[in-house]
Amino acid sequence: MAAYVPGEQPHQGGTAGLIKLNTNENPYPPSPEVLKKLRAAIDARLRLYPDPSASALRHKLGKIYGFEPDQIVIGNGCDDILNLCVRAFCGECEKLTYFWPSYSLYPVLANIQGATQVVLPLDDNFQIKAHPPLLAKLADVKLVFITQPNAPSGVRLQRVEIQRVIEETDGVVVIDEAYVDFAVDNCLDFVREYNNLIVARSFSKSFSFAGMRVGWAAGPRDLIAALDKVKDSYNVSRLSQLGAEATLDDWDYFQRNVKKIRATRDRATMALVKLGFFVYPSQANFVFARPPTPLTAKQWFEALRERNVLVRWWDADRIRDFARVSIGTDEEMDKFLEMTEEICPTVQP
Amino acid sequence: MAAYVPGEQPHQGGTAGLIKLNTNENPYPPSPEVLKKLRAAIDARLRLYPDPSASALRHKLGKIYGFEPDQIVIGNGCDDILNLCVRAFCGECEKLTYFWPSYSLYPVLANIQGATQVVLPLDDNFQIKAHPPLLAKLADVKLVFITQPNAPSGVRLQRVEIQRVIEETDGVVVIDEAYVDFAVDNCLDFVREYNNLIVARSFSKSFSFAGMRVGWAAGPRDLIAALDKVKDSYNVSRLSQLGAEATLDDWDYFQRNVKKIRATRDRATMALVKLGFFVYPSQANFVFARPPTPLTAKQWFEALRERNVLVRWWDADRIRDFARVSIGTDEEMDKFLEMTEEICPTVQP
Repeated sequence: MAAYVPGEQPHQGGTAGLIKLNTNENPYPPSPEVLKKLRAAIDARLRLYPDPSASALRHKLGKIYGFEPDQIVIGNGCDDILNLCVRAFCGECEKLTYFWPSYSLYPVLANIQGATQVVLPLDDNFQIKAHPPLLAKLADVKLVFITQPNAPSGVRLQRVEIQRVIEETDGVVVIDEAYVDFAVDNCLDFVREYNNLIVARSFSKSFSFAGMRVGWAAGPRDLIAALDKVKDSYNVSRLSQLGAEATLDDWDYFQRNVKKIRATRDRATMALVKLGFFVYPSQANFVFARPPTPLTAKQWFEALRERNVLVRWWDADRIRDFARVSIGTDEEMDKFLEMTEEICPTVQP
Repeated sequence: MAAYVPGEQPHQGGTAGLIKLNTNENPYPPSPEVLKKLRAAIDARLRLYPDPSASALRHKLGKIYGFEPDQIVIGNGCDDILNLCVRAFCGECEKLTYFWPSYSLYPVLANIQGATQVVLPLDDNFQIKAHPPLLAKLADVKLVFITQPNAPSGVRLQRVEIQRVIEETDGVVVIDEAYVDFAVDNCLDFVREYNNLIVARSFSKSFSFAGMRVGWAAGPRDLIAALDKVKDSYNVSRLSQLGAEATLDDWDYFQRNVKKIRATRDRATMALVKLGFFVYPSQANFVFARPPTPLTAKQWFEALRERNVLVRWWDADRIRDFARVSIGTDEEMDKFLEMTEEICPTVQP
């Protein structure tokens, strides 16, 4: 059984000398207010267990996004949420479906659970085409993962195609919206419409909180209660809960930050296109780009690595011609583009 | 399926006005050095993912306890470790064994996994009696949990009985040593002796770190690698890893703290005995006590609750005549004893 392989994480000390564009972290720190509140919470209370139900955080999320607290569950990162979904909704030898290419954790979680994998291919544009033969494969499926926007391509799936999948599935559909704050819309409204849908979210990317491990999900009460039953009681630390609340309190900072990253993303996309790259239109905080021939994605990835720029490349079918580049600060992206231009054998205007 | 029921956790704000002796937290805060190092780590780096392998913490634990780093895995609390053991070593419908009474999470984890539970009774003194009929039940068992010292009684199991269980089991034995720092000895030396043994530990109790969620386990390389494969990549936050390292750096503080709690425990035990209680000889940071007739454990528990003292009581076979009292500060225990004396209908000298 193969374990999930995360992107390279340099030593705890940080990223000194490196431009780290390989694991989709936010290039900007949490807001000063968040850091201040966290520092103020470092005291004797750390000896006490955290609130097992993360009640204050669920109330706050509920108010912001329009749910009751019992329609929300908090995870130790969004990966914890995805894992809980597998545990709660898909037994050993039952069918688990995901679209491919997408997040490489899904097959790992399915393997750990001993679930039967039904892999549905996305089309060449990383879109779901919910035609009858594909929909037929959803019979008897217990759990479906959909990544919106898709990773690693960053493209946005059509809402109508997602709806057809939800409607054709008797089991539970999980829309993994880890990157959705960088997109034009999201699927939270579907939670109010369907009784078999869960939407999963992360604080890691748009809220600059990857180091603190907080994710959440919204769904119908009965599905959320099922996740609650399989989660570790104390799955999210005191500081992580409190910090996540603090990020929500500084909503303006979060929005400015997201807006800045989107602008940098669109600028970087255009610059890569000018260099001859093919780049999928991204709705996430990364771009998925294929270098101009004769440069291969692997060569590009390795040449960047030699120059202390980390991006992500997978030696896997359908995606090995591309590398995924997380959006950094403008300064970081300028350096990345400069080095990419240097690496490109011929600049194609 | 029943979920695990944790002890009552008052609102995040803390324990103002309450004497909280119900979930075995350490009454003393983490050391000032730990708090200082944590505060210093609250900065822009929180935007970055933590080290997925918690390398620095594993190295530090390895040095202290005499293991190589690849014999150690870090969990999001010791509960995460126990959960990983079930996932890695016991499939659906395979046999999972634990002794009873012990930690009520084991049956919950077994249920979630769909494992077949083989429950072995401890004797009236909460001891394993590893006689042939009991040992025969270990045939085909994939995973055995042993709690040393036992919870909720606090009693220490005989090492030789534990060894017989390990030797008779073809599957994996996990010794859950969450409370062992308060005991006279531990079973880490067995890890070097047996190839089917894992010892699980917690930072929550003896290291005053319940709020931060860190546990660990030591075992043979192949078993640790199996746990590593099923764990969430980023299961422990940056601050939790760093804080746990800091607690290990202040070893003297930890030892003084543990020594103080042991002394308070032994004093509280004697005081309860003088009031006519039956108290098991505890090697943990709690005592398990049966009130003198006609006072029932439930009445005692409820009368304490009315006086803002939280202890733990379970309405379950074999243990409903007892309540479990976590060891607080000397001041807290004095108040608890005073109220208990007030509650007792007749003081039996």
